[in-house]
Amino acid sequence: MKKLIIASTSSIYGGTFLEYLLPTLSIFFKGTQQLLFIPYARPSGISYNDYTTKVQKAFAKIHIHVTGIHQFDDPKQAIATAEAIFTGGGNTFELVNQLYKNDLVEILKEKLNTGTPYLGTSAGSNICGVSMMNTNDMPIVYPPSFHTLGVLPFNINAHYLDPNPHSTHMGETRATRIKEFHVFHTIPVLGLREGSWIEVIGDEMILKGPLSARVFLPSKEPFEIESNSILEFFD
Amino acid sequence: MKKLIIASTSSIYGGTFLEYLLPTLSIFFKGTQQLLFIPYARPSGISYNDYTTKVQKAFAKIHIHVTGIHQFDDPKQAIATAEAIFTGGGNTFELVNQLYKNDLVEILKEKLNTGTPYLGTSAGSNICGVSMMNTNDMPIVYPPSFHTLGVLPFNINAHYLDPNPHSTHMGETRATRIKEFHVFHTIPVLGLREGSWIEVIGDEMILKGPLSARVFLPSKEPFEIESNSILEFFD
Repeated sequence: MKKLIIASTSSIYGGTFLEYLLPTLSIFFKGTQQLLFIPYARPSGISYNDYTTKVQKAFAKIHIHVTGIHQFDDPKQAIATAEAIFTGGGNTFELVNQLYKNDLVEILKEKLNTGTPYLGTSAGSNICGVSMMNTNDMPIVYPPSFHTLGVLPFNINAHYLDPNPHSTHMGETRATRIKEFHVFHTIPVLGLREGSWIEVIGDEMILKGPLSARVFLPSKEPFEIESNSILEFFD
Repeated sequence: MKKLIIASTSSIYGGTFLEYLLPTLSIFFKGTQQLLFIPYARPSGISYNDYTTKVQKAFAKIHIHVTGIHQFDDPKQAIATAEAIFTGGGNTFELVNQLYKNDLVEILKEKLNTGTPYLGTSAGSNICGVSMMNTNDMPIVYPPSFHTLGVLPFNINAHYLDPNPHSTHMGETRATRIKEFHVFHTIPVLGLREGSWIEVIGDEMILKGPLSARVFLPSKEPFEIESNSILEFFD
């Protein structure tokens, strides 16, 4: 009985940290008093403490107390006993690296598969896929594996950006990069635009937020799914 | 006695493949009759044969014959005996993966360090750095290591893009990603804009092309170096 919110981004343009999601989170985390925060992705290299403080401030608005996993002596035990979990964005390589280093991949997967409410944003959403192979992040550290939690039957491309028809830049577009991925793998990829999230309740996965999302399947033309659709093309 | 051209991109906007570099290459490769091409990076998943054909067409204009490394029974021997080498762009993860799989990293490094003329574009330039940790590419395969040739004493960020002050996108800018890299590493990073290249002759490294490049050092503000400058801040 999974219960997940998998968001493309923690902030949308012009908004503060988690602001656009707070109305949803106050319902999603109803009854939750303590949230375990995983700050390993360290956006811009922020310290675990500073990142946790930022998250504490946001969740204080909906009366949830936040503790950083680094504040526990035993991070594995912290996950095992967590009432609810949030993994924030930043660098997916470093996040995955720390999850492996601290031997947290299996226990986190088990917790998510058995109903612990979970929020992921950006890198924290990428790790819910089968692998982290569709991250946009820079490979600043070498993790022991690219395999991730696999609590979703597909991969996430967070902060999905449509190709800009007016661009003069010759670097690959996001769509081209995902096409290159499908030369080697058959795992579906969901391009999740900023402001979108997936709500997973049990086996039902629904796209939320104001925008459509883009689905990439191997050997097929990418297509759009509308907001509030059930994601059911990943069989 | 190194002899390298390390280019940000193979094509600039509005130009055909290698077009903007051909005048330079016709001088750089003067006297070269046979060029070994390494097509492992496979941009958009193009086949080795098709990629090699594209390169053959470009080099035919300056009367150089091109053979793809995949056309040899023994790729190691192909590098060992190569008169000149070109590694094309595409996905850096897959390029590095294939270099390790075929046990070519050491022999390629040795060839470049002992004067074999070498052209790299994009992914083929990234591998000349100490590590591939500043690539923009998607991690579509898991290479055995991120360590690369280290024939340059710094890392390359190819297709360097300045932050767009009008962007509403919340994904990290290139500069932020490189800053995150410097939380973990002290290796300098050169942001090489499209149309720029580095010419390495012996120990002298010169920035070429119409644009300046951006230098990122740990714990310092990034700064610009002008075209035709000698790169000498990497000590």
